[in-house]
This record gives sequence, structure tokens and C-alpha cells, in this order.
Amino acid sequence: MVDALKFAVSVYVIVFVGVVAALPHQRRISPYNLKLRNPLANGYTYETLYLKQNVDHFGFENDNTYNQRYLVADQFWNHDNGPIFFYTGNEGDITWFCNNTGFMWDIAPEFKALLVFAEHRYYGESLPYGSESYANSTMLNYLTAEQALADHAELVHYIKSTVPGAAKSPVIVFGGSYGGMLAAWMRLKYPNLVLGALAASAPIWQFPGLSDCSSFYETASSLYYDASQACGDNLRLGWYTISEIGEGAAGGLDFLSQTFSLCKPLTSKYDLFDMMDWLANVYVNLAMVDYPYPASFLEPLPGWPVKEFCKNLATPLKEKDLMVALAKSVKMYFNYTGQATCLNISQQATGNLGDKGWGYQACTEMVMPTCSNNSNMFYNIPWDFKDYAAQCKADSGVEPRENWISLQYWGKNIKSASNIIFSNGLLDPWSGGGVLQSLSPSLIAIQIPLGAHHLDLRAQDPGDTADVRAAREQEKNILKDWLYGQ
Amino acid sequence: MVDALKFAVSVYVIVFVGVVAALPHQRRISPYNLKLRNPLANGYTYETLYLKQNVDHFGFENDNTYNQRYLVADQFWNHDNGPIFFYTGNEGDITWFCNNTGFMWDIAPEFKALLVFAEHRYYGESLPYGSESYANSTMLNYLTAEQALADHAELVHYIKSTVPGAAKSPVIVFGGSYGGMLAAWMRLKYPNLVLGALAASAPIWQFPGLSDCSSFYETASSLYYDASQACGDNLRLGWYTISEIGEGAAGGLDFLSQTFSLCKPLTSKYDLFDMMDWLANVYVNLAMVDYPYPASFLEPLPGWPVKEFCKNLATPLKEKDLMVALAKSVKMYFNYTGQATCLNISQQATGNLGDKGWGYQACTEMVMPTCSNNSNMFYNIPWDFKDYAAQCKADSGVEPRENWISLQYWGKNIKSASNIIFSNGLLDPWSGGGVLQSLSPSLIAIQIPLGAHHLDLRAQDPGDTADVRAAREQEKNILKDWLYGQ
Repeated sequence: MVDALKFAVSVYVIVFVGVVAALPHQRRISPYNLKLRNPLANGYTYETLYLKQNVDHFGFENDNTYNQRYLVADQFWNHDNGPIFFYTGNEGDITWFCNNTGFMWDIAPEFKALLVFAEHRYYGESLPYGSESYANSTMLNYLTAEQALADHAELVHYIKSTVPGAAKSPVIVFGGSYGGMLAAWMRLKYPNLVLGALAASAPIWQFPGLSDCSSFYETASSLYYDASQACGDNLRLGWYTISEIGEGAAGGLDFLSQTFSLCKPLTSKYDLFDMMDWLANVYVNLAMVDYPYPASFLEPLPGWPVKEFCKNLATPLKEKDLMVALAKSVKMYFNYTGQATCLNISQQATGNLGDKGWGYQACTEMVMPTCSNNSNMFYNIPWDFKDYAAQCKADSGVEPRENWISLQYWGKNIKSASNIIFSNGLLDPWSGGGVLQSLSPSLIAIQIPLGAHHLDLRAQDPGDTADVRAAREQEKNILKDWLYGQ
Repeated sequence: MVDALKFAVSVYVIVFVGVVAALPHQRRISPYNLKLRNPLANGYTYETLYLKQNVDHFGFENDNTYNQRYLVADQFWNHDNGPIFFYTGNEGDITWFCNNTGFMWDIAPEFKALLVFAEHRYYGESLPYGSESYANSTMLNYLTAEQALADHAELVHYIKSTVPGAAKSPVIVFGGSYGGMLAAWMRLKYPNLVLGALAASAPIWQFPGLSDCSSFYETASSLYYDASQACGDNLRLGWYTISEIGEGAAGGLDFLSQTFSLCKPLTSKYDLFDMMDWLANVYVNLAMVDYPYPASFLEPLPGWPVKEFCKNLATPLKEKDLMVALAKSVKMYFNYTGQATCLNISQQATGNLGDKGWGYQACTEMVMPTCSNNSNMFYNIPWDFKDYAAQCKADSGVEPRENWISLQYWGKNIKSASNIIFSNGLLDPWSGGGVLQSLSPSLIAIQIPLGAHHLDLRAQDPGDTADVRAAREQEKNILKDWLYGQ
């Protein structure tokens, strides 16, 4: 555990991408997470602070406390009741979210806003039990969205009641991905504290019974087919080619291992399943970060990385030629900066903190079905809650609750809420689990056709598409309406 | 513990009346609770059912379950989507609330409604750990409003998803006192499940910083002064008289013990504090149940019991004459049916289940300040949270959280909610902590000037006042608007 934690402080991780891939039997979950080798040095300056929080907000037997980290930037703030823009931190180091949520920094001067980035418990430095936080399911018991929201609520309350000038400051919560879910849920559950929420790429309906589990892989697949028909067909054929070569003539496993420069050579056909799982995650993640300009979100990548990835695959290929081309593309993803010496297909299974955290959350509350039925470039990936639950129980000793999130956060019946922007980039595989149509004049859906995973929350960039610029303008106007409209 | 539980199944208790009385130093809390010797035999028929619930909705380490009891009456129900009237059970045996919430029974035929009465965990038969539920603070850890609301939410979901015809049935929650708070909070936190709430005599603002702690005793006192100036003055003088006699000449304690027919004679001046605390609770409770007709809510009582109580005290009295008259009145309260052989001033300290439960809740979440500053017939009762917390810690090992309820249930900032009726009888000492003015067209306050504690929820009675009849009509019309208005 100590090693894992030491790792975590120097490594930025993204773990939301809780893809369930299944081949041939269902796999539990493999949150994809990669090192961000070059965290953005964007010059944002902030103060790092800590608030003592109850480890258990929902019970009184455990009176332990811990320090929640939060970052504050007040250089833009109108200290006389200027608004507070509050990022509801999600599953990772808050400094990373802070640095990758440039939209808040870009608009803070115009709104004269105080910026606050609140870290989610069990991630980054906000560890309820320090290096023991992940030791077992007893220690992990307080890792839930409800507890995290209560932390954020207490922090909002604390800031408003202690910072001079903040008492009457309206609070807008911002978040992307799971952080966007938390932002939306914060408005549902604590509208006394927050005036409104910008929930970017928040798949609040990617839960059992709320949306079609196939949309995730369908969307991802469509990006590759849009790049070129041949690219999608090649990737689809690739699964069979891997099996054929790996299970075929002697030397097949070695060929694959060498071609993909695998750190640990394949030694059996079971390793092929891991490899395919790993590849499926690569495709999905690349779709998630299909930004129009070079960016370092999951990995340092060129602009429109799916198109880049598909360049080598633009003509029909087969057999070893297909593998050689595919490997070249995969290395583009993992090794754009030329620093990787080999590729590690068990990377998502290594024990870094963010990964463990999301793995636990996925096995408790965050039951987010994804599936594929061979209708696209992915292999068959069934969804079966019972299998999923059994594997969670076997692996981590906890059992997920299939309908809890729907019950707790209102499922499809959110019309009685107000003041939430649900923005979604349509390139994002998660968009199918998001709110894509406005539900009322104050539950506003914004679609960004050429946007990937919460592109709108990123800092403005000369390479931005027109639609993300328009989305940000619309978001600013809605915020102004909330803040000044009455 | 076993004895306490055996007691509980045959005894009906009311424990909401968490009066904090302090003399001379602050007392922690003394929830007043008395036996209901004659539970109403009103002929209501219902089925008793149980739903398996998670003991801990907010964590995954404890996978224990327990059976929540609930009562169902479907004889009035239009099985084709007729509404569900759902009582959000509070701190006591649900059959008692069922029998004392005649309003739901009275209107069910007109609305063709399904009636459901859901028991609150840790009360009645809904004991998470059976006879060990109150053994220690570990067992009690799951006794919170959040857990109870989650139980109620799961039960609504279960009924709607399993009972044929219920899927589209709109749900209205009803509750009185703490149950009314739960009803209102249910609409705040789970509007996906419930269309609206009738929160009767729900002092959702009787929490630190939300209302004036003095209103509780002020209101109670005013009832006695309204009965007659002499009655209020006599009761006010009574405190000094008790001290003078009890601490004065030899035989004073015996005189008081005999005059009040105390089961356990007073033996020291410290016992006088207990006696005064007990009397203050009597006065408050009598105000709470100041119903216009004979009723058996806390005790079997005549109509307008405060006036009855004051009949012996209608002229200025002093010294032993005052004590004799006061004792006669007190016996009217405790012994209207002539069955009590002696009066027990430590009654509120006896270990019956409801008492223990509310005592725990008051020492954790339900920090409801009441105070008096000698401006009325009560003695000086200061409010000091630190003292309160220290006494809780010493007595029960848990520490209350002063602002949690405000944070969790929106404090005064509830305007973004909708579809809640807040009804309050103005005779009720708790009314000062309630919502007395409408906040929006769908957050509607109804005042019942001649009403005591949730009189409107009781069955209609020939002795009802015009204003409670009008309140019930208004409530019915609002329910119709919610159910059929769109």
C-alpha cells in the first residue's frame, strides 16, 4: 500500500473510464489509467488548503476526521459577494483536475469569481486513513458519492461562513465526467448551497435501466468508422487476427509480443484475452480524448488522435500486416513522445491509487453498464449484473447495489430539479449515458457535435472547433442568467 | 435490554417532545414519554408486511439486513394507478401512528388511495439488530434520518415496482411531528419518488440558527395565560414555591411527595430539580395535546385539557395551597382514567425503547434548541450547545453535530423545493420552529389557530374546530391540484 501511495502523489491518473470488457467471459472491470507524463505547466496559481472533515458523515460511532485538500485562487475574485466557482473533485488528484479545467480559469476574470477545487476523498492527498486508506474494505467503507458530496457541502458551507465577503456569494459547481455527475447531484441534493451546476460529460444515466448499455461502444466505434471504413473494419477484423495468430502456428504469440513491443511476452491464449481487453480500452480512451488539438489528457497526443490512429489503417489489411499496422498505431497512443520502451498490457491492473479507488466505487455504487453485441468494431461484450456482482464480491469482498444510484439521484425523474447544464461532446463514448435533450428551461442540454470527453471544460485553444466555442459562450450566458438574471 | 424491548411491544410511546429543561444547570434532554393506556380501537384494518432492508444504505462493508415493518390498506385503492398515501414513520411503533393519523383514513375513499404506513428503523418491530439494537453506540450507528429516509425510499420503490397497478401511482407522503419533518425531507431529497408532502407540525427550523429557541416555551406559556392570567402566574410562582417548601422547614420534601402522590419520595434538594423538570414537561406536553375534544394521544384527556388543568388554578394561590391545587391538576393529566396509584417523576428516564431512540437521535443529528429566559411562566432555561454536546458525550458516548441537519435539509433555503404543505397548529409549542408562511405557490403554509400538535392529521371529530376543518379542506384541495391539476 505504501508503494501505491508513493506512486500516487507523483502520478496523475484518470480512472473514470470504467470499461467492462468481456472476452470470452465477462470481466469485472478494468478502469483504464495511464501516467500523464507531462502534466500541463499552465501557470495557474492557487493556494493549497485543508479542511478537517468527518470520515463518516452518516453515522456517529466513527468520530475519526481527515483533512480534505482544496485549492483556492482568489486573484480574480470580487471580495464583495463575487460568485464562487467550485469544482466538485472526482476520482483523482485535484491538482490534475485543476490544471485540466481551464474553462474555469478562463472565465474567472470576467465573472470576478473565486475558484475552489475540492479534492474527492480517497484520492490525491485526501486520504481518510492515510496510507491505510485502501488496506481493506473496512477502511474503504467511507468511499461513496454521498460522503464525497457531504464533504463538498461542508466545504462550501465552511467557505461561505468563514471567508469575509463569501457569505452571500452564489456558488456554481463545475465538474467533468464523474465530477460532472457530482456537480449535478450537488444541485439535486444541496440546492441550498449551490445556485447551479455545469455538469460536463456527466453520464448520470449510464446506470442500469436508464440508458442502452450499447451506446458506449457504438459511439466509440463510430469514430473509427468515420475516420475511414477501412479503419473500423481493420480493427474489427483485428480480434480474429489476434486469435488466429496467437492460437495458430508456433511462434504466433512471440510475433504478437514483438510486434507490439510488449513488456511481458504473451505466453498462453488466455493472455490474448488480456491483450484484447487492453486494446479495446485503448480504442475507447482514444475516442474519449479525441480533441481537435494536441493535448496531454490521458497521454500526450496529437490533435484528432483517432484520425491519426487510423492513418496506418486506412486500407484493408489482414493477418500479420494488420498486426504490424495496428501496433504502429497503438504505439502512437502510448509513445507519442517517444519515451516508452515497451507496452504493458496489464497496465490497468497495476495498483495505483486512482485505479483502486474507482475499482471500489464501480463495485459498490457506480454500476455503469456497457455492452456490445457484435454490431460494431468491438467484440461481443455482454452485460450481466449478476456476473458483475459475483466478480466484485470475489475480487474485493463488496457487492454492488444495482439500483441505488437511480434511487438516490432520481434516475430519469429529475424534472423537479433546476439550474443544471448538461453538456456532452457527441464524440465521447459516455455521451449516450448523458442528458442530451433539455428537460426544462433550467435543465439545459448542450450538445457539442465535434467534442470529446468534457472538451468544453478545457482551456480555450486556437485549435478549438466552432461548436465548442459556441458551447462555452452558451454556458457563460446561462451562468450570467443564473447569477444576474433576477 | 431485553426488558426494555419486551416493554416496547406492548406500550405506545411518544418521544418527540425532546424538551431541554435546565435548572439550575443545563440538562441534556428529557424526551417525555408516557404510556398510552388506551390505544384507539378505531377499527382500521390493514395488512402487516415486512421489507428486507440494508442496515447501512451509505456503506458497503456492513452487509447486514433487517426487516422493516409496514402496514398496507388497499381496500380503498383504485388499483389502476390510484395514488399512494405513504406515512413516513417516525420515532415510535407504526401501529400507533397508523391509528392516530385518521385524516389519511378519512380521505382515502375519496382519493381511492392505497394507504401505506412505514415504520422507522429502531422503533416498534423494525429493529436492525433485534433485542441488541440499543445495546451500544455501535449497534445504534444506523439510527439516523438519512438511513430512515433511504428505507422509506426503498420501500416506495419496492411497492411501485412490484405491486400491480402501482407503477404509475403518484405518491404523497404524510407525516406529523418528526414524521412531518421526514415527509418534507423526503420531498427535498427524493422528489423522483414522491409527488408531494403533507408535513404536519414539522418543526424543520427548530435547529440551531434557524429560529428563536425561546418560541417553544413562549408558546406553551401563552396557552396557560390564555386560560387565565392567574393560572400562568400560579405556575410561574410554583417554581419558587417548590424551592421554598422543599428547601425550607423540615417536612417540606415529605409534604411535596405526599401532595403529588409521588411513587418515590423526594429526599434532597436535587430531587427538586427533577421534579421541576418533570412539571415543565407536563406543561409543555399538555399544550402539545390541547385538542378540542377528549383524546388519548399522550394520555387519556378531556377536551381542551389546558383549560381543564387551569380550572383549579384560576385564582391567585400561594405556598401550600398552590401546591395542593397544582397537584390536583397534574393528577388530572396523569390520572384522568383513575388508574394511576402514584406519579413517577423519573418517568422520562425509564428505559423504554422510543425514549432511548429519540434520546440517541437528539444527541446526534436532532439538535433542536429550546430555551426560556424568565419572560414567561417557565424558569430560566438556557441553551448552550457546548454543554449539550458534553452531556451527550458523557451520557451516550456520541457527540451531536450542530449544523448537520441545516446543511443536509437546506436550512432556510428551501425555496427551490416544491409541493410541500407545512401545516401548524398555533397552540403547539413546536409551531415556532415550523414554516408558518408560504414560500412559493407550491410551498404552502397552513396555520390552524386553535390547533395543537398535528391536529389536522387526526381523524375528524364532532368536536373539531372550524379552523381545523378548513385546514383539512385546503389540504385536500391542494392534494387534488397536485394529483389531477395538470
